[in-house]
Amino acid sequence: ELGDLLEALLPEQRLALVELMGSDFDFSALTEVDEAIRLDIVDNLPNEQIAQAVQELDSDDAVYILEDLDTEDQDEILAQLPFTERIRLRRSLDYPEESAGRRMQTEFVAVPPFWTIGQTIDYLRDDKDLPDRFSQVFVIDPTFKLLGAVDLDQILRTKRAVKIEEVMHETRHAIPATMDQEEAAREFEQYDLLSAAVVDENERLVGVLTIDDVVDVIQQEAEEDLLRMGGVGDEELSDTVAATSRSRVPWLLVNLGTAFISASVISQFGATIEEMVALAALMPIVASLGGNAGTQTMTVTVRALATRDLDIYNAGRVIRREVMVGLLNGAVIATILGLVAGLWFHNPDLGFVIAAAMVLNMLAAALGGILIPLLLDKFGADPAISSSIFTTMITDVIGFLAFLSLATWWLHLGGAPG
Amino acid sequence: ELGDLLEALLPEQRLALVELMGSDFDFSALTEVDEAIRLDIVDNLPNEQIAQAVQELDSDDAVYILEDLDTEDQDEILAQLPFTERIRLRRSLDYPEESAGRRMQTEFVAVPPFWTIGQTIDYLRDDKDLPDRFSQVFVIDPTFKLLGAVDLDQILRTKRAVKIEEVMHETRHAIPATMDQEEAAREFEQYDLLSAAVVDENERLVGVLTIDDVVDVIQQEAEEDLLRMGGVGDEELSDTVAATSRSRVPWLLVNLGTAFISASVISQFGATIEEMVALAALMPIVASLGGNAGTQTMTVTVRALATRDLDIYNAGRVIRREVMVGLLNGAVIATILGLVAGLWFHNPDLGFVIAAAMVLNMLAAALGGILIPLLLDKFGADPAISSSIFTTMITDVIGFLAFLSLATWWLHLGGAPG
Ligand SMILES: [Mg+2]
Ligand SMILES: [Mg+2]
Ligand SMILES: [Mg+2]
Ligand SMILES: [Mg+2]
Ligand SMILES: [Mg+2]
Ligand SMILES: [Mg+2]
Ligand SMILES: [Mg+2]
Ligand SMILES: [Mg+2]
Ligand SMILES: [Mg+2]
Ligand SMILES: [Mg+2]
Ligand SMILES: [Mg+2]
Ligand SMILES: [Mg+2]
Ligand SMILES: [Mg+2]
Repeated sequence: ELGDLLEALLPEQRLALVELMGSDFDFSALTEVDEAIRLDIVDNLPNEQIAQAVQELDSDDAVYILEDLDTEDQDEILAQLPFTERIRLRRSLDYPEESAGRRMQTEFVAVPPFWTIGQTIDYLRDDKDLPDRFSQVFVIDPTFKLLGAVDLDQILRTKRAVKIEEVMHETRHAIPATMDQEEAAREFEQYDLLSAAVVDENERLVGVLTIDDVVDVIQQEAEEDLLRMGGVGDEELSDTVAATSRSRVPWLLVNLGTAFISASVISQFGATIEEMVALAALMPIVASLGGNAGTQTMTVTVRALATRDLDIYNAGRVIRREVMVGLLNGAVIATILGLVAGLWFHNPDLGFVIAAAMVLNMLAAALGGILIPLLLDKFGADPAISSSIFTTMITDVIGFLAFLSLATWWLHLGGAPG
Repeated sequence: ELGDLLEALLPEQRLALVELMGSDFDFSALTEVDEAIRLDIVDNLPNEQIAQAVQELDSDDAVYILEDLDTEDQDEILAQLPFTERIRLRRSLDYPEESAGRRMQTEFVAVPPFWTIGQTIDYLRDDKDLPDRFSQVFVIDPTFKLLGAVDLDQILRTKRAVKIEEVMHETRHAIPATMDQEEAAREFEQYDLLSAAVVDENERLVGVLTIDDVVDVIQQEAEEDLLRMGGVGDEELSDTVAATSRSRVPWLLVNLGTAFISASVISQFGATIEEMVALAALMPIVASLGGNAGTQTMTVTVRALATRDLDIYNAGRVIRREVMVGLLNGAVIATILGLVAGLWFHNPDLGFVIAAAMVLNMLAAALGGILIPLLLDKFGADPAISSSIFTTMITDVIGFLAFLSLATWWLHLGGAPG
């Protein structure tokens, strides 16, 4: 709620509030605010104060705040921390961005396998250095190699004399520190985890990933896909006009390029349009409906790729389904469109032409809507980013081309290329 | 993984697998599969077998399977259950769809406030009827009124003699059973909850909502918004061609209606276009870029509304920002577009006209992109569903209208209305 307050304030008030609160300011609130706000505050505070504050935080929150700073500031802040703290944060920061190693917390509870439940409980009652919250106890060997984990409810329902190794479950869900956070989140979803051990390349326990932070990852990744499909980058509500404009213009420029391609297709049919101006009024309908049908297919495809519901095993089946749906919906829309257009302009032939163009474009929309994201994904590009521009480019070009060339040919118009 | 297997199979193989596995088939796998598959399997199994299976499940999973059946089947299945089980499932099913009461699990651990930690642990060791997993112990009075909750790690780090009431935290995050699942999920996110008490209208504990099911809710709601913005309903990859077509056609029909509106705008300018066919080639550019800019604004707005980042307190600021961004990006795009169009058709005046129309349409896009979702939200409609059709309708109509009427007037074309 401190985070909400910070977001509601004006930029100049934010720093004032932080300075006013002094050591009462809980830096973990910074993990809840937009990146621009976090950076703005942290950049304007002295590095000594950040170093002080960072020591009070869970390591994952500290890393979350530090990772956006430039390396110079990072080094200066880390240099002021006690040795072990410095080492632990440095290690997290050395893992790739958006990896499990970046999101993990290095505070955890671990016990040897030969301890009894009783010993473990006594240890938990005595140890002053426990994490603020935990939902699992990990089991390790003397080299920190992960052997298993015990959920707290399991500890509570087991008799004191029982050995940990008898009740621990093996570490099927240990997460490599280099795993992408999105993939780690899928493990959490699939196996309903509350927390998971994060291990290094030698299977040694280095941290724990907790569900509350995974929930944030899930939200972020869903938001990222939604925004990207809408042609928006990593934008936040608190961004300035200049930053927002800068992030949106590139997409519009690409769109300007594709729009010129469509325009040049249309301009080939100048003579045709001059002879029958009704074509100019009707041609956007064919393009627009193709665009919407293509977007439907593309949206479903992009989402299914993100959730891994779509893969090479069922791609064939889904492509066939989309083509069938495209033809079926094409037939429905084409019939209505053909009738209305034919009646509107008292020209049955025109109705026939637009209906035929509509079916062709719906087929193009279905194929484009599924093949473009599949191909982008196959070549390692994020299908959420550029599928929509390519899909609508295809439906615009095919829409105008099919309608205008069919009209030229069937209605004997223009001296045009058809 | 049984769920994944079911989804990979052909429809006719699915039922065969369930029948083959007999009582080895774990019905909780049905909560992981697409709704159409779940319904298909459950509808084709005898109600006796479902009643049998449902008793093995956590109540939330049982409700998840039962809620999609028609009331007749539900009643028949419930009638075959033992009294207490029947009452509990019936109560969950009586809460509204997508409410916390529907998603909660009625198996939980609750103790009186005057028990000690020691008593509580002894009880947990003895009780044979504990839920499979739990992460909190609730504290209730004799009438089941909720007094508080204790996290398991708190129980483990506290001495045996301490009373529960001394370590319990009060129930700030108790969730009313009628609360919408999406709102409940936001509580989990904001307060990093692992589980939360669900209470009835008398503050009595009726169940527990757990984070693993909340994660599913978050995924579902994000998916719903993404699909709706893409003009797709509650569609799943396993739906048939007919079902998919049926769910997508209504949206295309609405789009057909708005496309006719744009077409009728264009048809007003027949004389103008006849005189300068270049206009027909250029006009889709103005409409398309407006549509994309409007979609950018709308996407950000719909997402911010869903996460409650946007509300009446900052709406004014965000509207102002969007208008500024629209004007700025409008200026950038209009300049390029005007130059290219002017050069292409060797007509500087035409370049000036299209640039002016572009700026106007970008302004319309910004206003439409933010005001439409805000208004839909204010009047209780889901902004994800229809924002995109209205926004592109506005940018199409304004785009064609501004460009063609400016051209008519400035270039002295047509005998048209301008
Ligand atoms: Mg924390
Ligand atoms: Mg970050
Ligand atoms: Mg990512
Ligand atoms: Mg799950
Ligand atoms: Mg954390
Ligand atoms: Mg956190
Ligand atoms: Mg992603
Ligand atoms: Mg359901
Ligand atoms: Mg909902
Ligand atoms: Mg959170
Ligand atoms: Mg559950
Ligand atoms: Mg579940
Ligand atoms: Mg929603």
